[in-house]
Amino acid sequence: MTEFLKSRIAEDKAIVEAALKEYLAYTDPGFAVLFDSMRYSVDAGGKRIRPFLVFEFCRLFGGKIEAAIPFACAIEMIHTYSLIHDDLPCMDNDDLRRGKPTNHKVYGEATALLAGDALLTYALETAATNDKVSSACTLEAVKLLTRAAGPRGMIGGQQLDLIGEKEKYQLPTLRRMQELKTGELIRAACLLGVIAACGDDAAKIAAQGYAGGIGPAFQIIDDMLDVTSDAETLGKNVGMDAVCGKTTFMTYMTLDEAYSAAKILTESAVASVKNYNKSDILCEFAEYLLNRKN
Amino acid sequence: MTEFLKSRIAEDKAIVEAALKEYLAYTDPGFAVLFDSMRYSVDAGGKRIRPFLVFEFCRLFGGKIEAAIPFACAIEMIHTYSLIHDDLPCMDNDDLRRGKPTNHKVYGEATALLAGDALLTYALETAATNDKVSSACTLEAVKLLTRAAGPRGMIGGQQLDLIGEKEKYQLPTLRRMQELKTGELIRAACLLGVIAACGDDAAKIAAQGYAGGIGPAFQIIDDMLDVTSDAETLGKNVGMDAVCGKTTFMTYMTLDEAYSAAKILTESAVASVKNYNKSDILCEFAEYLLNRKN
Repeated sequence: MTEFLKSRIAEDKAIVEAALKEYLAYTDPGFAVLFDSMRYSVDAGGKRIRPFLVFEFCRLFGGKIEAAIPFACAIEMIHTYSLIHDDLPCMDNDDLRRGKPTNHKVYGEATALLAGDALLTYALETAATNDKVSSACTLEAVKLLTRAAGPRGMIGGQQLDLIGEKEKYQLPTLRRMQELKTGELIRAACLLGVIAACGDDAAKIAAQGYAGGIGPAFQIIDDMLDVTSDAETLGKNVGMDAVCGKTTFMTYMTLDEAYSAAKILTESAVASVKNYNKSDILCEFAEYLLNRKN
Repeated sequence: MTEFLKSRIAEDKAIVEAALKEYLAYTDPGFAVLFDSMRYSVDAGGKRIRPFLVFEFCRLFGGKIEAAIPFACAIEMIHTYSLIHDDLPCMDNDDLRRGKPTNHKVYGEATALLAGDALLTYALETAATNDKVSSACTLEAVKLLTRAAGPRGMIGGQQLDLIGEKEKYQLPTLRRMQELKTGELIRAACLLGVIAACGDDAAKIAAQGYAGGIGPAFQIIDDMLDVTSDAETLGKNVGMDAVCGKTTFMTYMTLDEAYSAAKILTESAVASVKNYNKSDILCEFAEYLLNRKN
């Protein structure tokens, strides 16, 4: 990763984390446990890829970061809620996430369930109260987010994933599941940046093209790393997909084929934005995702 | 209950149920299980009090029912999601609701969790895509709903309720918990009706006054019925609050005191709307809630 990209990722991360801290502050002691548990998982962090995409698409189309901040926070809260609910005993039953005990291990299942519900609802309140753009743009953002996170988006993908634990997927179903489960929020992130910048239809098409490339490429590389990486580099156990008998892109492709597919997708992402001035950060980011080691 | 009120409740119920059926239809077989489970709980029905309030406040202020339908469906979906999550083993662990097996008993815990998440998200998508009112009004509705259902509203109340299972509440905390857990959605329902009718500030004050009366009155009567009714009339087990050692209004009041308090609250609700033309249906509804037997 170049210094340029590294410092921009760090800058965007700092912006979203400062804003999340403010949104999740509370003054009312009655809500302390609930907000503590919400903050616990939001603070657990990660790369903040979705907020980065919101900010960078906003910048690309000349928008102000202030207008993108509520949307970036909203999408990160939605991502976090999905992880909290995913980790619950009735779903993946995970005790650890990014090396820390999962939410329900710390706060109990009932509060973890409510913290997830609260983050989803509060995310949409945060997006809906964005007053740095017009009402029409704010409403467009809320429509986009609810559609992307809902039953015909992320939740639909999670349901397909549940079914896939019992039956082996065919490749088109696997693609569709991934597209819904993780692709929809990535697409929403890119488009939210455009909306924050009041971008036109051409800008939205560019954002969709970029997301349509990096989304599936990201997932293919994820599946490859589970086979090729080691626990120390990856920061989580490797080989788990094979152990769990999970259908992944590795079920249907060799490593070479998978990398080629991810490379073509990355190139299509780059092609979608490269004619815009100052798109180098997004082009570089797509390449970084392709060649990442964790 | 007069025939007038009875037929209006039935009419409003039919409208919201037909619309919910349409919203929850699916054409994509990949989503069948998820939408089936969402519909299962939405169809389980109940009195549809919240949609009734949306419709009647819309009518009171001269709005068109078409404009209120998406909001009425949204609030009923949010109410239903809260019941699905409430019934989960990590919360109240209920096997039955309104005489039918709870969602997780039929579809399993994982799908029930997702069905709740999906209903919440889809509710807000449904509200946000209401194109029968202006963008500004739609956005106002989304802000209201997310605030009412979120961590400083319904979810905050549920968290207080969880805490209250371990420690005995004082009366002000009990009031606050109820205000958040059930009062906020009732208030939102009344206000959504006003928003659908493009009502002015005076109309909103009237709606808030009405909700501020019937909300707590409803809860007091609920607590009284648990003591005074029988299982057949009530349609659920009675005396459960005492068995569970739950703090209710009955912990702090005699039956006479409780009824007096509920009566005063009902009168204040009636007073808030009675000067408006055609408010008789809402006045009658408040009286019906006060004197209901189930």
